[in-house]
Amino acid sequence: MTDTRSQAGARVALLGFGTVGQSVARILTSGDIPGVELTHIFNRQVARKRADWVPSTVTWTESIEDILSSPVDIVVELVGGVNPAHEWVRRALESGKSVVTANKQLIAHRGSELLALAQAKGLEVRFEASVAGGIPVLRALQDGLSGDRLVEVRGILNGTCAYILSRMQKQGASFADALREAQQAGYAEADPTEDVDGADAAAKLAIISAVGLRRPVKVSEIPTRSIRPIEAVDFEYAKELGCTIRQVARAAIEDDGRVFAAVRPALVQLNSKFGQIEGSQNIVSVRGVYGGETTFSGSGAGGGPTAVAVVSDVVSVRRSLVGAPGIATPMAQQPYAVNPDFVAPHYVRFIVNDKPGILAQVTAAYSKFGINIDGVLQLPRFRKDRLPFVTTLEECAESMLDKALAEVGQSDYHVQPPLALPIFV
Amino acid sequence: MTDTRSQAGARVALLGFGTVGQSVARILTSGDIPGVELTHIFNRQVARKRADWVPSTVTWTESIEDILSSPVDIVVELVGGVNPAHEWVRRALESGKSVVTANKQLIAHRGSELLALAQAKGLEVRFEASVAGGIPVLRALQDGLSGDRLVEVRGILNGTCAYILSRMQKQGASFADALREAQQAGYAEADPTEDVDGADAAAKLAIISAVGLRRPVKVSEIPTRSIRPIEAVDFEYAKELGCTIRQVARAAIEDDGRVFAAVRPALVQLNSKFGQIEGSQNIVSVRGVYGGETTFSGSGAGGGPTAVAVVSDVVSVRRSLVGAPGIATPMAQQPYAVNPDFVAPHYVRFIVNDKPGILAQVTAAYSKFGINIDGVLQLPRFRKDRLPFVTTLEECAESMLDKALAEVGQSDYHVQPPLALPIFV
Repeated sequence: MTDTRSQAGARVALLGFGTVGQSVARILTSGDIPGVELTHIFNRQVARKRADWVPSTVTWTESIEDILSSPVDIVVELVGGVNPAHEWVRRALESGKSVVTANKQLIAHRGSELLALAQAKGLEVRFEASVAGGIPVLRALQDGLSGDRLVEVRGILNGTCAYILSRMQKQGASFADALREAQQAGYAEADPTEDVDGADAAAKLAIISAVGLRRPVKVSEIPTRSIRPIEAVDFEYAKELGCTIRQVARAAIEDDGRVFAAVRPALVQLNSKFGQIEGSQNIVSVRGVYGGETTFSGSGAGGGPTAVAVVSDVVSVRRSLVGAPGIATPMAQQPYAVNPDFVAPHYVRFIVNDKPGILAQVTAAYSKFGINIDGVLQLPRFRKDRLPFVTTLEECAESMLDKALAEVGQSDYHVQPPLALPIFV
Repeated sequence: MTDTRSQAGARVALLGFGTVGQSVARILTSGDIPGVELTHIFNRQVARKRADWVPSTVTWTESIEDILSSPVDIVVELVGGVNPAHEWVRRALESGKSVVTANKQLIAHRGSELLALAQAKGLEVRFEASVAGGIPVLRALQDGLSGDRLVEVRGILNGTCAYILSRMQKQGASFADALREAQQAGYAEADPTEDVDGADAAAKLAIISAVGLRRPVKVSEIPTRSIRPIEAVDFEYAKELGCTIRQVARAAIEDDGRVFAAVRPALVQLNSKFGQIEGSQNIVSVRGVYGGETTFSGSGAGGGPTAVAVVSDVVSVRRSLVGAPGIATPMAQQPYAVNPDFVAPHYVRFIVNDKPGILAQVTAAYSKFGINIDGVLQLPRFRKDRLPFVTTLEECAESMLDKALAEVGQSDYHVQPPLALPIFV
């Protein structure tokens, strides 16, 4: 890893030092991100916020003017809401600074104007963190799938709804009880309107529609329906239909060219990728005319994942500031040596010509190499002269297991060599 | 969409006009990709390959020298294998052309050298299609998650193995029978060694390890085990353990800094994202120290998806050729009108104070607005004065359903307003 201090880094100012801002500062000061230097932190009542793990070279300020008049290259806006963020971002761009933001309402409502301003100034506004937290879905739509013509996007984009609906599903809770639980767990705000009634997901859908489908739409035109009328009994009926209920955001370009967009509670199949989304997990599935369906899932909220999206945007802006090619060349380094030793729980299947004492011999060999047995499985109805049985093992190194099996494998009762497979849990 | 002919486009030469090459040509000549122009197609026995849907402006040739001496900007290499692709790509770079390739063996074995050459010449080599087909996973690792420190990557990267193993799982087939079926269906080659014994996945894992973990490793050092010894009985035992079997590629940076990498058949949980992968679907899951786990899935093979990855790379190279910012600004356009009418199968739940004739009235209202009933569900044990029942409807427009429900909703037997939810299948 390159030492950040040995090269001129892009200077970064943070607006907002809450959960996400603190996570961003942690990453930027970790040494993991070369070429980027945190120089300013802006927050109201900054004295209360000051943290001793932030390098002393960082300037703390309560004045936005300090940031705007400073020589920072990139302003990271994490204050949220349309105002005053809109004014600050506009002025940052006017003073020659690129902007990275996690602010979905700002981008959904004023993104068009801010992006045009950035373009006119030769700067960038990036907003990966505004949709689906740590999942790099906007880049995927914009860049990774730029060779396709995307016609449909579906997502579970609001963690509060996913949390409440999965609680109702699993516990038979009422909406009111599940909401209270979400509020106590920090998954829902005191006023949950923006989440449960769909405005949050609608803002994110407007951004995805613009970036992925290249069809900007007004957030206010996206129809939303609340999850409030969902009752516990709806989950019982949904289950009868092999389904559960989630808040789904969907946008599509229809055959006649019209743009469809809506946010709704909807039935989704229980055993599908969408039906398995819970809590702060987000999922986005896109369909293109050439490439079919591609799905992205991961953490849609939380300081760490959101900060990763913000910092990734900072890195991208920095790359274009220094004129670096879009692609790094990590392969052009000396190769590393591979450690091939798979440490995992294991499944080992034997097929033997049965006789007394086989299991005792196997377990003795395991024991000799320090391997613990988790369980033994033997299904009925197999022929005794071709009898399959299985041992499952606690986590062990494959190299040890190979030695144990080499020892066991000497015996003449094996119809086939033992088969060992790691178990991923 | 911008008309491609109205602007100077980056000139693209295709090496290889097989399934993927033809799909790439289809997309490049569709009008969907502005700023890029297909100018040359190279293939052996080109007379046999010539297709009448390719514009007459395209030059067909059997001579690689024609391509190297032409003024094309980007060479798309789709011939596969290390030789002669390596020589051709090297010479293309030396003659000032950037390269896009789908060739995993070339990149895994010679990528380091080719990337260094490209960098020295100020050119690019892009290879998104070499791993996981249409899923833009390399970009996600390199760019979208550049703000994280990734420490583990797991994937199902070989469609032949996924096809064979899911056949064995579902039909209780032997490996030999499932392989034969895969060969007949075009999912396995006559000599399936590279797929079933793990070399294909190992090459892809080496590329992911270099790009995602920034730990280039030699393909030859990645230990592989074949799926050939898997028997039908292993799926029976795996099922007992809540698992199935897939070929899994995994690389990780261990706590002591060593790089682990291996390709193995492994047990994966049946109801997990990995356990549900079948046929040509691929999945890649990455774990970072800040952002946790992020998962990408989609089509790992096939002409269309692979071509999307290739063309997306062409678009990226073209953007850096013309010095366009990495980010497009699709939001800086006039917004489109939203069509809010959700056309989908629907779930409609009523809670009524029961009396005779309710269902007749509901069905009459549906019928009046052209809505077809798919089914009626009424679970036992509910109170008659607060009786929930559900109708499921065939695909219908929400606007029609709203009208039908407005009509039904007039009646005095409703304890709550009817609740309509779309069903995603």
